[in-house]
Amino acid sequence: FVSWVRKVQEVSAKAWQMGLSDPRKIIFSAKMGLALSLISLLIYLREPFKDLSRYSVWAILTVVVVFEFSIGATLSKGFNRGLGTLSAGGLALGMAELSKCAGESEEAIIIASIFIVGSLATYAKLYPTLKAYEYGFRVFILTYCFIMVSGYRTGEFIQTAVTRFLLIALGAGVGLGVNIVIYPIWAGEDLHNLVAKNFIGVATALEGCVDNYLNCVEYERVPSKILTYQASSDDPLYNGYRAAVESTSQEDALLGFAIWEPPHGRYKMFKYPWKNYVKVSGALRHCAFTVMALHGCILSEIQAPPERRLIFFNELRRVKSAGAQVLRELGNKVKKMEKLGESDILVEVHEAAEELQKKVDKKSYLLVNSESWEIGSRTNEISAPQESLNVDDEETKYHEYKSLSEAVLDLKFVPEAKGWDNNVSTGTAGFNHDGRKSLPSATTYTPSGTPPDNLFKNTSWHAGLAVNANGESTHEESKTYENASALSLATFTSLLIEFVARLQNLVVAFEELSDKAKFKEPIESPETV
Amino acid sequence: FVSWVRKVQEVSAKAWQMGLSDPRKIIFSAKMGLALSLISLLIYLREPFKDLSRYSVWAILTVVVVFEFSIGATLSKGFNRGLGTLSAGGLALGMAELSKCAGESEEAIIIASIFIVGSLATYAKLYPTLKAYEYGFRVFILTYCFIMVSGYRTGEFIQTAVTRFLLIALGAGVGLGVNIVIYPIWAGEDLHNLVAKNFIGVATALEGCVDNYLNCVEYERVPSKILTYQASSDDPLYNGYRAAVESTSQEDALLGFAIWEPPHGRYKMFKYPWKNYVKVSGALRHCAFTVMALHGCILSEIQAPPERRLIFFNELRRVKSAGAQVLRELGNKVKKMEKLGESDILVEVHEAAEELQKKVDKKSYLLVNSESWEIGSRTNEISAPQESLNVDDEETKYHEYKSLSEAVLDLKFVPEAKGWDNNVSTGTAGFNHDGRKSLPSATTYTPSGTPPDNLFKNTSWHAGLAVNANGESTHEESKTYENASALSLATFTSLLIEFVARLQNLVVAFEELSDKAKFKEPIESPETV
Repeated sequence: FVSWVRKVQEVSAKAWQMGLSDPRKIIFSAKMGLALSLISLLIYLREPFKDLSRYSVWAILTVVVVFEFSIGATLSKGFNRGLGTLSAGGLALGMAELSKCAGESEEAIIIASIFIVGSLATYAKLYPTLKAYEYGFRVFILTYCFIMVSGYRTGEFIQTAVTRFLLIALGAGVGLGVNIVIYPIWAGEDLHNLVAKNFIGVATALEGCVDNYLNCVEYERVPSKILTYQASSDDPLYNGYRAAVESTSQEDALLGFAIWEPPHGRYKMFKYPWKNYVKVSGALRHCAFTVMALHGCILSEIQAPPERRLIFFNELRRVKSAGAQVLRELGNKVKKMEKLGESDILVEVHEAAEELQKKVDKKSYLLVNSESWEIGSRTNEISAPQESLNVDDEETKYHEYKSLSEAVLDLKFVPEAKGWDNNVSTGTAGFNHDGRKSLPSATTYTPSGTPPDNLFKNTSWHAGLAVNANGESTHEESKTYENASALSLATFTSLLIEFVARLQNLVVAFEELSDKAKFKEPIESPETV
Repeated sequence: FVSWVRKVQEVSAKAWQMGLSDPRKIIFSAKMGLALSLISLLIYLREPFKDLSRYSVWAILTVVVVFEFSIGATLSKGFNRGLGTLSAGGLALGMAELSKCAGESEEAIIIASIFIVGSLATYAKLYPTLKAYEYGFRVFILTYCFIMVSGYRTGEFIQTAVTRFLLIALGAGVGLGVNIVIYPIWAGEDLHNLVAKNFIGVATALEGCVDNYLNCVEYERVPSKILTYQASSDDPLYNGYRAAVESTSQEDALLGFAIWEPPHGRYKMFKYPWKNYVKVSGALRHCAFTVMALHGCILSEIQAPPERRLIFFNELRRVKSAGAQVLRELGNKVKKMEKLGESDILVEVHEAAEELQKKVDKKSYLLVNSESWEIGSRTNEISAPQESLNVDDEETKYHEYKSLSEAVLDLKFVPEAKGWDNNVSTGTAGFNHDGRKSLPSATTYTPSGTPPDNLFKNTSWHAGLAVNANGESTHEESKTYENASALSLATFTSLLIEFVARLQNLVVAFEELSDKAKFKEPIESPETV
């Protein structure tokens, strides 16, 4: 008994939680109760008309069925119900007249007509483009059968049809009235908010990806929920982009309802371009896919060495901030229904991407290992002195970054970072960080250590390729892996730049929406947003 | 009138098409007609029991509502309906007894109880985990209101409830009987086929991606449907992976129905692991995301030069074939419900990936441009003669590939390919393809031409970064772009290798499924599949 009480407590706590997080649900429930009470009361009042209230079930049924969460859904269901009832009623009355002429075989004709009408209507509703009217077909079949059967029994086809229609109209009137007049819930509003929320989700995911990448956060074991693409509650990064990627069906449903809704609130326009919200969301999804691919670099078994990631620390971080900033600003603009300002929203992120690209350009020797080049591995040149200084500069900066980020770095990486000069490719081994030039013999150079094991999660890769857990991997394999892991950094930066490129497309989609939906001009300067 | 006739012709042609492509739809429609005729007939036969058939609408309603396409859906709806009716009936009878004691205020109590029950049930059905029982709650509310209202009117609470229940049982019996006995359509079967189909779709998309990449197929203009991630009918590659990515909601729906279905056909097991099909499909989706990212490389504005792609032609193609082969084989095994054989299905694809990785390793100088390296650009070394020969070898091979693929190559690339030695990075410029060594002055080297314009779709990238359409791009920009375009190839290969790595996870999910679902041992050797 005690456990039972506890269960009740739990359930009511959850119910309370749900009410707090979305009070519209409470209001909607109360509205439903109100509509039901109203219709019952009306049926009582009409008690003198015994005949009418014998079919009272239709009124209740209509209220129960038509009363949907959003106005759009209610209207579309009401329309379906009305159309289905009317057309079926007309058809049934016609068939009834015909069957009366048949005399003896009337019954057979009725049954046959039910078979034919039922089959055809069912077949029609399976057609993809008619799927939105599925409910209408159902009502059509039900009405037709009911009128034919009960009309035959009583012989009062017309009266059955008319009574039924009146009661359905009554039910629909009460249901629609209560639902629309008292605190209406709009599907369009939901769609609008969903799209705006997805922007924030993708922005968060982008920041999370780049931050995790730079801080070398690795998954101890990649959650199987991610590997099988199921919803997971504990990874905000994953959830951020997954929500945006997965919202297609939700958006389509809301769109299907929103187009039924009359102009209201902030959407004062006939033929409001709801479709463009879905389009913007699609363009956002196209961006989210690159964020997903970026996340893939973190999930991957082949990981770039932390030291090299840190070399691009500033540039990556700048692109991240600028990119997330653009997403947030666009999300806010969608939410507030503001147009873009005069200034190009993408200037900063493009500059950041350009800077990253240039850095990659300068440092691309870090992205590959030259030692296996068949044209001969790179040895040092006598380079111009200022170039040597440059390297020094970069080195110093690098150490700054390291100390800045050491707090967040997993401690196990610190010894690796100390051994930087040994671990990087021979292409840079020529320079120790004190600027002195050393001359390793290029082609015979052996890496002073196998790549650190913690860079590879030695889980599920094919044994022949795998780096051995205890560092006994063969020389060749370790080199191949070192190279692959360096290239992984190249992939990450390329994907990030690709993400920036896709933003353009998103902005275009947003501009189309803001034009068609007549968003207001921005009041504040975009800088203060 | 003529246009009307044409329209009818069109519609019937489409209907006929639908029937041909899925004959189950025709059968289902006929079954529905049959069930409706049966229930009408039964109501006629029962005519003597006037009292019972007055409520005949319930029987028809039940058939119309319960008769769903798949058995699982029918059973789950029938269960919902039964449970909702029974519990609501019980509650209503109890409340009716209570309200009778209230005397005068009976009416008020009934209305109040309707309000409370209606609100609570509505609130409960909004709770996410109870969503599957949404229909049950609807029936519950309907039944409760109906019994309270019509019982109050006639005073025959019990009779109303019992009659109603009998007729619903009759309707449910006819509906379930017809649907299950005659050509049952199983949701589980659909789920099974959907998952198997997704494998083929992803395999096709993978092949399409790599082939298009190697043949340097570019989109004249990326279809806006892809940019906004909408369904498009004319791109089999895009559709292949999109179907796999988008099938989540469909799978969830089918899963929800499949678990209701009794053991049948090939699925002779209680608690059949339908969930694992969804899991396998999720793992496949995880792979499909990398295919999507590969496709992104083709859609991207920054494209690797065709000559360099061809250098990896054989390796990329081998990975592609092996990867697609694995997917097809797994898809077939899912379809045929066979376990994996003794031999490791991934051997070939892992070897191919390893080979690709090694090639990348050897040739990674092609993936970067050394000219902007701040540590000084690479100049030629005096390399061992056999290395020089190696290059020669590769060159020859490269020309072989070119002639092989020239037929599919866009002609505009041929002149570029001729100018190979000028376009590749200075890292290789030291070797002309006749093996003679040349000595360009490394740091002051200017590219003999701006990168070919057709490599960049000069559409939507920010002006400051864009390569000018008429080739007037500044020197620095063009270099940066050259480098970015080379790195794009690195990205492509990295993603392909990542794809291969994810296959492991897919195989694990498949093995779990084949274990739990007790797939049969393979009869043929896997080589002949």
